[in-house]
Amino acid sequence: MTNQQPKNAPDKAANAMWGGRFAAGPAAIMERINASIDVDRRLYTQDIAASRAHAAMLVATGIITAEDGDAIDRGLETILGEIDAGQFKFSAALEDIHMNVEARLRELIGPAAGRLHTARSRNDQVATDFRLWVRDAIDQVDAGLAELQAALLDTAEAEADTVMPGYTHLQAAQPVTFGHHLLAYVEMIGRDRGRFADCRARLNESPLGAAALAGTSFPIDRSMTARALGFERPMANSIDAVSDRDFALEFLAAGSILAVHLSRFAEELVLWCAEGFHFVHLSDAFTTGSSIMPQKKNPDAAELVRGKAGRVIGGLNTLLIVMKGLPLTYGKDMQEDKEPVFDAFDTLALSIAATAGMVRDLEANREAMRAATAKGFLTATDLADWLVRVLGLPFRDAHHVTGTLVARAEDQGVDLADLPLDAMQAVEPRITQDIYSVLTVERSVSSRSAFGGTAPENVRAAVKAARERWA
Amino acid sequence: MTNQQPKNAPDKAANAMWGGRFAAGPAAIMERINASIDVDRRLYTQDIAASRAHAAMLVATGIITAEDGDAIDRGLETILGEIDAGQFKFSAALEDIHMNVEARLRELIGPAAGRLHTARSRNDQVATDFRLWVRDAIDQVDAGLAELQAALLDTAEAEADTVMPGYTHLQAAQPVTFGHHLLAYVEMIGRDRGRFADCRARLNESPLGAAALAGTSFPIDRSMTARALGFERPMANSIDAVSDRDFALEFLAAGSILAVHLSRFAEELVLWCAEGFHFVHLSDAFTTGSSIMPQKKNPDAAELVRGKAGRVIGGLNTLLIVMKGLPLTYGKDMQEDKEPVFDAFDTLALSIAATAGMVRDLEANREAMRAATAKGFLTATDLADWLVRVLGLPFRDAHHVTGTLVARAEDQGVDLADLPLDAMQAVEPRITQDIYSVLTVERSVSSRSAFGGTAPENVRAAVKAARERWA
Amino acid sequence: MTNQQPKNAPDKAANAMWGGRFAAGPAAIMERINASIDVDRRLYTQDIAASRAHAAMLVATGIITAEDGDAIDRGLETILGEIDAGQFKFSAALEDIHMNVEARLRELIGPAAGRLHTARSRNDQVATDFRLWVRDAIDQVDAGLAELQAALLDTAEAEADTVMPGYTHLQAAQPVTFGHHLLAYVEMIGRDRGRFADCRARLNESPLGAAALAGTSFPIDRSMTARALGFERPMANSIDAVSDRDFALEFLAAGSILAVHLSRFAEELVLWCAEGFHFVHLSDAFTTGSSIMPQKKNPDAAELVRGKAGRVIGGLNTLLIVMKGLPLTYGKDMQEDKEPVFDAFDTLALSIAATAGMVRDLEANREAMRAATAKGFLTATDLADWLVRVLGLPFRDAHHVTGTLVARAEDQGVDLADLPLDAMQAVEPRITQDIYSVLTVERSVSSRSAFGGTAPENVRAAVKAARERWA
Amino acid sequence: MTNQQPKNAPDKAANAMWGGRFAAGPAAIMERINASIDVDRRLYTQDIAASRAHAAMLVATGIITAEDGDAIDRGLETILGEIDAGQFKFSAALEDIHMNVEARLRELIGPAAGRLHTARSRNDQVATDFRLWVRDAIDQVDAGLAELQAALLDTAEAEADTVMPGYTHLQAAQPVTFGHHLLAYVEMIGRDRGRFADCRARLNESPLGAAALAGTSFPIDRSMTARALGFERPMANSIDAVSDRDFALEFLAAGSILAVHLSRFAEELVLWCAEGFHFVHLSDAFTTGSSIMPQKKNPDAAELVRGKAGRVIGGLNTLLIVMKGLPLTYGKDMQEDKEPVFDAFDTLALSIAATAGMVRDLEANREAMRAATAKGFLTATDLADWLVRVLGLPFRDAHHVTGTLVARAEDQGVDLADLPLDAMQAVEPRITQDIYSVLTVERSVSSRSAFGGTAPENVRAAVKAARERWA
Repeated sequence: MTNQQPKNAPDKAANAMWGGRFAAGPAAIMERINASIDVDRRLYTQDIAASRAHAAMLVATGIITAEDGDAIDRGLETILGEIDAGQFKFSAALEDIHMNVEARLRELIGPAAGRLHTARSRNDQVATDFRLWVRDAIDQVDAGLAELQAALLDTAEAEADTVMPGYTHLQAAQPVTFGHHLLAYVEMIGRDRGRFADCRARLNESPLGAAALAGTSFPIDRSMTARALGFERPMANSIDAVSDRDFALEFLAAGSILAVHLSRFAEELVLWCAEGFHFVHLSDAFTTGSSIMPQKKNPDAAELVRGKAGRVIGGLNTLLIVMKGLPLTYGKDMQEDKEPVFDAFDTLALSIAATAGMVRDLEANREAMRAATAKGFLTATDLADWLVRVLGLPFRDAHHVTGTLVARAEDQGVDLADLPLDAMQAVEPRITQDIYSVLTVERSVSSRSAFGGTAPENVRAAVKAARERWA
Repeated sequence: MTNQQPKNAPDKAANAMWGGRFAAGPAAIMERINASIDVDRRLYTQDIAASRAHAAMLVATGIITAEDGDAIDRGLETILGEIDAGQFKFSAALEDIHMNVEARLRELIGPAAGRLHTARSRNDQVATDFRLWVRDAIDQVDAGLAELQAALLDTAEAEADTVMPGYTHLQAAQPVTFGHHLLAYVEMIGRDRGRFADCRARLNESPLGAAALAGTSFPIDRSMTARALGFERPMANSIDAVSDRDFALEFLAAGSILAVHLSRFAEELVLWCAEGFHFVHLSDAFTTGSSIMPQKKNPDAAELVRGKAGRVIGGLNTLLIVMKGLPLTYGKDMQEDKEPVFDAFDTLALSIAATAGMVRDLEANREAMRAATAKGFLTATDLADWLVRVLGLPFRDAHHVTGTLVARAEDQGVDLADLPLDAMQAVEPRITQDIYSVLTVERSVSSRSAFGGTAPENVRAAVKAARERWA
Repeated sequence: MTNQQPKNAPDKAANAMWGGRFAAGPAAIMERINASIDVDRRLYTQDIAASRAHAAMLVATGIITAEDGDAIDRGLETILGEIDAGQFKFSAALEDIHMNVEARLRELIGPAAGRLHTARSRNDQVATDFRLWVRDAIDQVDAGLAELQAALLDTAEAEADTVMPGYTHLQAAQPVTFGHHLLAYVEMIGRDRGRFADCRARLNESPLGAAALAGTSFPIDRSMTARALGFERPMANSIDAVSDRDFALEFLAAGSILAVHLSRFAEELVLWCAEGFHFVHLSDAFTTGSSIMPQKKNPDAAELVRGKAGRVIGGLNTLLIVMKGLPLTYGKDMQEDKEPVFDAFDTLALSIAATAGMVRDLEANREAMRAATAKGFLTATDLADWLVRVLGLPFRDAHHVTGTLVARAEDQGVDLADLPLDAMQAVEPRITQDIYSVLTVERSVSSRSAFGGTAPENVRAAVKAARERWA
Repeated sequence: MTNQQPKNAPDKAANAMWGGRFAAGPAAIMERINASIDVDRRLYTQDIAASRAHAAMLVATGIITAEDGDAIDRGLETILGEIDAGQFKFSAALEDIHMNVEARLRELIGPAAGRLHTARSRNDQVATDFRLWVRDAIDQVDAGLAELQAALLDTAEAEADTVMPGYTHLQAAQPVTFGHHLLAYVEMIGRDRGRFADCRARLNESPLGAAALAGTSFPIDRSMTARALGFERPMANSIDAVSDRDFALEFLAAGSILAVHLSRFAEELVLWCAEGFHFVHLSDAFTTGSSIMPQKKNPDAAELVRGKAGRVIGGLNTLLIVMKGLPLTYGKDMQEDKEPVFDAFDTLALSIAATAGMVRDLEANREAMRAATAKGFLTATDLADWLVRVLGLPFRDAHHVTGTLVARAEDQGVDLADLPLDAMQAVEPRITQDIYSVLTVERSVSSRSAFGGTAPENVRAAVKAARERWA
């Protein structure tokens, strides 16, 4: 029994680019391990943009002629169109996106193509392309997260008055509002956006002009290319410029924390869909059936979002390991930098979209949530607080009294609100009828009205504030 | 500037398989996150083999008719041929390899196709397919490792007498033979093979017949399908059968340790190719040039092997995270199990082949290795041992005397063998001319003749023993 | 505001051991980063045992005198007693356990102590100690796992007839027996024991005699020390002997998979204790209260076991990263090998004990489990199987009919067993009264009687078989 | 043979704090797995500061009396003194730092101690303490990094004119200045400081007042406690406040990237100390000797810094795994949050100090660096650039010509600068004597004077700019 079909590999035409000194052709195994074109072709938009900026600068500084510059620019534009249209033939023998583009440029415009690589190297070229790509990816992730926040805010507003149990240790603890619970995720996603924004600001410097590692002896204008590509400034040190992959690591780190957030929400969705909860209903759009159990409605999308956190964290781990202990400047190990980043972006984009879709899709089962607050003595804290506030008990003593009352209620199989006054007074004689006023879940949630608390009016105010902040 | 083109997705024909109860079609996002066909199509050989074994058993136990069984078997054979030939049209709407095959079977043989899924579920089906795949992958990895050992043994034999510095802390410590050094890797790879073999033995039980999770009420014969598929026995517990992914984790763990071994050898190759060492020469087959520095011969293959350890470890991490805290039995998170395993196999297969290729390709620079042993007082231990053996000094005292002699030699800018006898006697008067007999590197390595030591005759004996053991 | 008090450090007496050539004392920072005594003191039993075996061999081979050997042996015995009794004064300046022991030996027996280190090095010494330690750790883990299996088997036997929902996607799918569910973990733990046993067999070779890396010129008998320490044989290659940490990696890998298993069971315990399930009751011995919510009974022990999987996996990751790309032979990076292993052992020992304790402690709420099987149409598969078996429908058609019947039952708010015959016949006219015989959960579980299925008699047989296998 | 002595555990006095409802005492195993006091005692400064701020607010809002508030404040001050002085007796039975402090407070001031916990919970308390601790840790890391930058800048300035080979693939590529190389690390460390600063700004919000999870019904003033503790504002959502551990994850992520940077520099130090390089000399303060090879000077500190990156990354991984898939709000799993953070801080603090120490300690071997630039045709790029600039060759053609010239020089065993003009002209007839002006390493580095290039004057300017930026 065989398995493992080989990956489809692009055309194997010889790479004559760096062949001057090499007699023997690379072995087949070498071509397979060395070629990155299957991966880095995703950089083509960025690669061509960076080359056009570089060519324009070479013209402006007089390093190449305007004629050559024009030919290069038009050739690159043509290539961009060809790739966009799916008509470009990639070659593994040409190793990477840079060589594939340059080889095609030579076909299109002849020897002038050979002037494009003046005063640069693949080292600063790929660093530039990859930064641009990650910057674009951040912008797309941010847009998705804004969408997710909007979905959460809309649902939170609609469920501002919906009571449900708040949990610690998966044990019902205190009543909260469903809206308030959803707003916790708005905060988490807000911090995620902040992390991506910080990563974007930090990466937005141009490596172009570092050349192989030492800079170049040509009179280039690094600020001009930086500006043209939307960078804030050129990077300050050429060795750092070609050695650094912090931006990829930081993207993966921010993505891992985001993935953890999404996994926590996904876990809650799976729980809320389970028989013992039934707090939400997800439509057929985000659930699937079973091949053997026709009655099942499985929250597959949520489970996949939860599971996919593993691969984002795995990708972060991968790149940290690749970079650890690597001497400066460029080592070929660093070719392993792109796949985890590309995969994390794809995974996050899909997970964000699925999560936003589920938030929009979910129907809150308010009755089930309300019913669940009736079990578990959720207003015990309210009772203890009453003892402190009204009777002046130290909190620890109030806690002890409450514990005893809960035990009594449990023995009698009733909720705290149904424990008779005399049973209460048997434990603490100073308790009065007034205590029952704090033992309803509605009163409990509305009393949590200090800033950040779960009271419905807080939820509405927080939705408003969040809409303004994140608009 | 845009980027991130979508992955090419297979055809979107509707999946009517589990549609009975589902009114709305799954959203596009759901289809993208849910479909696994792009990944699990690699299981097709195993899937079809398992289905054929299952169908034969259904016939043998009278659960389906021989007629239906024949039709199913012939249909599956046809499908296998179609996929092998690249003529099969996979559909993402049909989600996975199982549904794609079954839908095609229905086209080919009609309603009888619907009898194939009797007494099984996708849960035990995928567990069976994946185990078979990992078993095949292990066999391929093992064959590659045997090849790598053979390459190491041949080179070790050829370099049994070649002296080089042995290093600790990347500081030259004592002379060793290059052959002995290479044999260390034969041992490491031997343990790797042992780990994969243990993993294979442990996974070689059949989940088929566990159905969704509880077993089945049909009178199936699990031993028959187990035998037909080369399994040792059916798994003992149906819930475990569908929940377990230990075999994938263990494969990734064994693969991660292997990848670490390969990375250590790769690191040594990179060092040995560096200017300060030049211990080996790699041909153009495993090195590349530079786009800006025509003089470079970069050990790219070695660096890639070193870097790729990161992705194998990342994949192990991914699956451990996916499985951690997952309640029994099957959760859709587990669909994330295959990609890290497939990727680890591809990566390891390539890394093993590249490493074996480099071992066969490398040319030892015996002069450079020999010359490097002349620096660093590498026979200091031999001197200390002489003091112990001949003069009867306690080792710690001999160590102290030797340290003083090394300092003298360093001050005078000579090697230990060139330090005059009177200079030695000034430190320890009992030293005699005989001491110089142990201060040559050849004598040093040949004296390490206890079992496992670096002496050339040991290397030759070890090569012979290893060839017998690993044949 | 300050924080971070320094770790308590042992006494700073100067280490004169390797001082011969070193004028300046190590800086304070160096001492802190370099000293391992706080960690490796845990190796003292193994270090002393290995030294005694080494000394006995030195005597037997005539390398040292019997007199010196006796003095060394008695001195080491004394030191062992001192450390056991907590009366040994460890010194950070003496760096590690080896130097601490040797310095004390010199105090006790004078210069003869300096003969102990003849024909060995700290490199083979620490490799030997650490292997012995891991071997002991494996034996302790295995004993704990045997205990855990025993607890699971006892409970599985007691709950062989207890029906509960079996879940996929945390959706109730089919009825199973609680005993059968617990037996899945017996299988998982059995594989864990197999992995540790394989690791033990593979590590059980002696590095002693490899000396620094090249072997030694003294006429040592490596087989003698190997035998004395319970090793199967001496390691075949001296360079491998001091460079290898596979045994630590493999221990951590086996431990990580085990930790994942424990985390899955812990997750189930947390769920089973939750309001929506209440399948089990854990006593106060394994739950805690809340400082503010007196009614809570939190399954802290289960949550901690679940969470602690993270640190075991983190430790595996740590050591894989440390070892990746490290050139042979010993690098000081490898001093980072012990903490993750020690921590993983402590964590696993505690997690195993807590899990076994919870299994013994848990009280199954049979009524709640039985009641949960009444919801969710759990016998839908039985119905579909009846259609196949009795009416001869292809499974896919039976699946479709069942899906429709489930939808009808859901509309009417009844379980499948309560759907009237005419309602069934409206969907499939050939259905007869006989169908109701398969729609009870008891019948469903008892019908899964093929090998590995959930039927109560299977559970009892499996308990018996497991007791024999794992005794 | 036994091993694994138990950890020293603090005194086991019973924890009566949450005992009201619990009849049975926690089992010994539970106490060991549950108690966090060995770890979280490091939070005592923060815990007491937060309690004092909370008490002051309770007084200001009239929730407790000024008298009680004073007693509490004085009691806490006393406890702080006791712990600072090492006179506080921690108890494992009291579980954690919060309970230990409160129990002691009760001893000191009686029942009023019980009022301190009014309107808060351990959930918001520990979140507050831990944030304060991480904030302090960031400030200490930042100070250490500033020191490290200062050391790098001083050395860079001193070595602004020192030429050495710049490497890619560990192959000498182009001449650079040692100062320029060191400045790359100043940039890397600068980004690290930026990441920690961003993390600090993001975490600097107060969870205090979130209570268990829902907020509190007491009329607290969260802004007052936030201000008193130096927080920017109270956190906006109470559920997020107790569930969030982003700040710990972000600290570990920033720390992991920093650790990777330090590991890269450590790797370079190990290489530079190796026989084939000898670019730097480290004093005895940061190297150690060998127990068997007296001549060794091992760069242990550098190796340890390199290896310790593994544990920081492992710790990040640990906490990501702990948090992944955890439903809101607090789960006991989260008790595993502190150890990886504490350990990462200790590890980073030590690694930063050791690195700064090594930078200050290292003596550059300028002759060896200069000599190394003479091999490897390092000015090949300068030659190619001359062909482009002077002869107007397209870069790709110039590259090809240069490759041929390098091959000729290699054949003749001479450097490019020593290849006779006629040999050059045989390849490209238009080459003139002028070409030799670009073939010296000094000319090469000084010509890289565009912004960010390696020219000595750039180095001096960059040092000045960096001192201003990071002052």
